[in-house]
Amino acid sequence: MSKAFVLVNTNLGSEAEVESELMTIEGIIGVYEVYGVYDLVVEVEAESQQKLKEIIFSRIRTLKHVRSTLTLTTVS
Amino acid sequence: MSKAFVLVNTNLGSEAEVESELMTIEGIIGVYEVYGVYDLVVEVEAESQQKLKEIIFSRIRTLKHVRSTLTLTTVS
Amino acid sequence: MSKAFVLVNTNLGSEAEVESELMTIEGIIGVYEVYGVYDLVVEVEAESQQKLKEIIFSRIRTLKHVRSTLTLTTVS
Amino acid sequence: MSKAFVLVNTNLGSEAEVESELMTIEGIIGVYEVYGVYDLVVEVEAESQQKLKEIIFSRIRTLKHVRSTLTLTTVS
Amino acid sequence: MSKAFVLVNTNLGSEAEVESELMTIEGIIGVYEVYGVYDLVVEVEAESQQKLKEIIFSRIRTLKHVRSTLTLTTVS
Amino acid sequence: MSKAFVLVNTNLGSEAEVESELMTIEGIIGVYEVYGVYDLVVEVEAESQQKLKEIIFSRIRTLKHVRSTLTLTTVS
Amino acid sequence: MSKAFVLVNTNLGSEAEVESELMTIEGIIGVYEVYGVYDLVVEVEAESQQKLKEIIFSRIRTLKHVRSTLTLTTVS
Amino acid sequence: MSKAFVLVNTNLGSEAEVESELMTIEGIIGVYEVYGVYDLVVEVEAESQQKLKEIIFSRIRTLKHVRSTLTLTTVS
Repeated sequence: MSKAFVLVNTNLGSEAEVESELMTIEGIIGVYEVYGVYDLVVEVEAESQQKLKEIIFSRIRTLKHVRSTLTLTTVS
Repeated sequence: MSKAFVLVNTNLGSEAEVESELMTIEGIIGVYEVYGVYDLVVEVEAESQQKLKEIIFSRIRTLKHVRSTLTLTTVS
Repeated sequence: MSKAFVLVNTNLGSEAEVESELMTIEGIIGVYEVYGVYDLVVEVEAESQQKLKEIIFSRIRTLKHVRSTLTLTTVS
Repeated sequence: MSKAFVLVNTNLGSEAEVESELMTIEGIIGVYEVYGVYDLVVEVEAESQQKLKEIIFSRIRTLKHVRSTLTLTTVS
Repeated sequence: MSKAFVLVNTNLGSEAEVESELMTIEGIIGVYEVYGVYDLVVEVEAESQQKLKEIIFSRIRTLKHVRSTLTLTTVS
Repeated sequence: MSKAFVLVNTNLGSEAEVESELMTIEGIIGVYEVYGVYDLVVEVEAESQQKLKEIIFSRIRTLKHVRSTLTLTTVS
Repeated sequence: MSKAFVLVNTNLGSEAEVESELMTIEGIIGVYEVYGVYDLVVEVEAESQQKLKEIIFSRIRTLKHVRSTLTLTTVS
Repeated sequence: MSKAFVLVNTNLGSEAEVESELMTIEGIIGVYEVYGVYDLVVEVEAESQQKLKEIIFSRIRTLKHVRSTLTLTTVS
């Protein structure tokens, strides 16, 4: 199992909308709105590195109102 | 009483306009234009965490010409 | 329930030791070693903001070999 | 009147001690423990730029357990 | 005499244009294109803090193609 | 021989397109998509500092979908 | 083949010593001293993610005079 | 002529001492104490890239009480 945390910054005012959309994506097992340098903490799990990459690059980073992401891949 | 400092970056040239608008928002008890990595220091107080959140997310972050915010919530 | 993510940087070479110690602390429900700007992602839950604060300030930040922490408190 | 906000990082575990010491320094009108990239927000006021500088460089930055500071001077 | 260094990031590809415009502004005594996190180092001098502020906020930050600025005011 | 590493952030979702375009530019000897604060690591070599500068400023930074760059020039 | 770039900050004055030691480690295929926010760019290759991790955590991060590292793992 | 700006962070409380020492080094044509993320702005000029490198790595970075440096080399 591959796992990563994606720290997301959204367009200002779109936090709730992005949060809702993220929660419908397969492989995303947690979305938390947070205070501070990042707006959302997203927990992602997939059966392979390849699948994890697809979720992050094709599903999360391409979402409207996602402004930037910082991906922390776990050390397996 | 819940309290936070919000460090704001505005669109360049809009510092004064954003500052004026912030000063009219209930719960904002101080706005200071500063030199350095941030443009404005905003001091916010509310009677609950929930109300504090509303001011930050619905009033400050949605303001026109606010480019990014870094919220420092105080440790109660 | 109050929840936070604490992004931890450890002394270099002490990642595994800090990870082991963190996992024994009550309220810490996940510890993940990650690549990138941070070394560990720590997931903390407590029944109140006060208790959450105690875990972060008295248990995590005082651990030997913890060099710095960035706490992201969730927006309730 | 000259005013500045000093964002302070302390040695881990020394937040409360530094906070107590800061509150005894003349010219410091507020000290707040915060979550996030900084540990303390310190509000400083002095009758001149010269006096403000002395408080920051001779009193705050030389305190034991103060690890780093980021000073935001207000635009007068 | 008040003095500041303004570290400027420009729109990509507009470095030379911004550099040329900056060099025509009174009070700007040096503009250097640099490698790294910032694109231009701008050296500004004025006879008062008030005048320095005007140059930075009304002349530099409002320039087309200036994306962000970090102002380092000198400790007098 | 002059050499630099350029750490590139692209518009979200345009990583692959930018990567393809970079690989066709003379002087670029490696392009790697990475996880973390940067999206692409670009390795550039040229016969002179002047030529290196041209590749970075006229070819890389002006590419569509390149959002920001951090250039690390090697110490010769 | 797994590959990563490790951006290293050394103790000041120890750049050359760390560079020499890094170049003797198996799996490290390039070490470059650079100007800017990082001191050294280290290119690492290994036959598996597991082996890559060992080189970074057991060989690079434990080296004397290595102060901090930022690992960028390539997206395979 | 090669030129660079070196942004220096000193040990807290040692700003003035480091400033004095820097001003005696050949090739350093300006030292300014500043407010903000950096403590000192150092302006360096040398007749070659090689000589510039020596001043930065052998003279500035090895000074007692210099904690970190960020070098911005000018684009010639």
